[in-house]
Amino acid sequence: MLRLREIPIAFSGSPLDRADHVRSDPAALAELATPDARLLRLDGLAPVLVDEGALEWTTLADAPEGSELVFLGLDGAVACFAPVPPPTALGTPHAGPANWAAMSVLGADELAIYGSARALISWHARHRFCAMCGAPTVLAKGGWSRSCTNAACATEHFPRVDPVTIMSVENDGKLLLGRQPRFPAGRYTTLAGFVEPGETIEEAVARETFEEAGVRVRDVTYVASQPWPFPSSLMIGCHAHTDDTEIVIDATELEDARWFTRDQVAQALEAGDRGEVGEAFNAPPKHAIAHVLLRNWVEQGG
Amino acid sequence: MLRLREIPIAFSGSPLDRADHVRSDPAALAELATPDARLLRLDGLAPVLVDEGALEWTTLADAPEGSELVFLGLDGAVACFAPVPPPTALGTPHAGPANWAAMSVLGADELAIYGSARALISWHARHRFCAMCGAPTVLAKGGWSRSCTNAACATEHFPRVDPVTIMSVENDGKLLLGRQPRFPAGRYTTLAGFVEPGETIEEAVARETFEEAGVRVRDVTYVASQPWPFPSSLMIGCHAHTDDTEIVIDATELEDARWFTRDQVAQALEAGDRGEVGEAFNAPPKHAIAHVLLRNWVEQGG
Repeated sequence: MLRLREIPIAFSGSPLDRADHVRSDPAALAELATPDARLLRLDGLAPVLVDEGALEWTTLADAPEGSELVFLGLDGAVACFAPVPPPTALGTPHAGPANWAAMSVLGADELAIYGSARALISWHARHRFCAMCGAPTVLAKGGWSRSCTNAACATEHFPRVDPVTIMSVENDGKLLLGRQPRFPAGRYTTLAGFVEPGETIEEAVARETFEEAGVRVRDVTYVASQPWPFPSSLMIGCHAHTDDTEIVIDATELEDARWFTRDQVAQALEAGDRGEVGEAFNAPPKHAIAHVLLRNWVEQGG
Repeated sequence: MLRLREIPIAFSGSPLDRADHVRSDPAALAELATPDARLLRLDGLAPVLVDEGALEWTTLADAPEGSELVFLGLDGAVACFAPVPPPTALGTPHAGPANWAAMSVLGADELAIYGSARALISWHARHRFCAMCGAPTVLAKGGWSRSCTNAACATEHFPRVDPVTIMSVENDGKLLLGRQPRFPAGRYTTLAGFVEPGETIEEAVARETFEEAGVRVRDVTYVASQPWPFPSSLMIGCHAHTDDTEIVIDATELEDARWFTRDQVAQALEAGDRGEVGEAFNAPPKHAIAHVLLRNWVEQGG
């Protein structure tokens, strides 16, 4: 796949060909689903790593009897699948310790393959019933949809991708960063929030920044995007300016929000690269698009 | 709300304050839900217009007994609501004749209010059951979520917003536009497709353009976005370049795709402004972000 930006975006750049034409062609799909096609090994939703820090693959011959399988795409001529976990093995849809560990050891290609698989199987596992009529649903189109089994309903459901705006907000050479109570010690990062029905990206950036920090933005620009598979967000990274200096935090969302200078942000990123905590704050990890936004601001001035 | 771009984006710029703090505060919500609070009149999912071409409003006193109500936001101090239609009154989630008629007469503010309401009530009406366990769900947080009524499940569900990439693709001063069989006569427009789990915006643009037209893109840039409430898309408008000239269409998606010169696109847009069909093709209507992308390309060269 294309790599369109100079700063790497974790979970992007999957080497698999999604082969959309195969998904809606049951005969082609059946032909690819041979016993020696590849099956991603998973522990529920979490990746299983082999010693050297790579994803573990097995073959379709090892797939549990009757388990639903998602077609991830083609690696050359070889089809790759992932199993949908049973409802008892779901855990949280958010990133757990096994996921952060995987992020720290997996290469970009493998992380992208796991991310796509994770978002899809998590969606399947949580959508076993039809939201329209309540009847059971079954996996369809190689795992790129689910169909209602109630013939009178027969609604087709598609995997969710939830757009989230995440924004570096600047005033006179200082950046607005906030922290939630659940964050690691000293961590400050960019504000973020889901795009709601009826909003543009720019409007969502403005609303979220005002709701969370009481700051009005102008001149919103797009920086980069990231698929974040916990559970299935499309992070839309933006930069914005504000003329407001006073911060009024929404205490239900944030514990604190502050302005940081470019030197402070640059130092915190450098410290983070060395596995250390910055002097002014603990910068977001490199797998988060917040890190990309901070680096973009330091290097390109916005 | 802010108006951040010079070319108007239909369905954006709602004058209502979404008042997020009210949604999760049942007491505040109850205080606003007085009999004289405003209730949007709807015919199923379609808007009801008063003679002069404005949205028709009634009051909460007229709400059908037991009907679910979505809190749209505040117009000054007055709360605005919309009723969720019964399953029998749904029709298609896509834009029907009543919607296109409304687009042609409603002002920007009213179109934005209707768009948000439409996306929300359509989602509620199609999510009366829990995808996790199949039990009935009930409206919660003033209509900004639904809760599963099965205490053992109690999953909270949030309105969907589906990100869609839509892209003007250029090669040496010519633009790639395609048509689907269902389009009006002569209509050509930008290619588009849903962002899938595991993709950046730029990757989705590249995949969709290659799938639909066999053309490889480079240098993808973001142009503008639009909330499109049929049923609830976030249209993410991009521009891209290609070095390929040969088009290979996916006949399951497109009937034709061609290159158009800047003069042809400019003339088609001008003809459209006069309510006429262009010489080379019939340009997309001004309420579609495709129109904005075409105008952006003609006026700014990309």
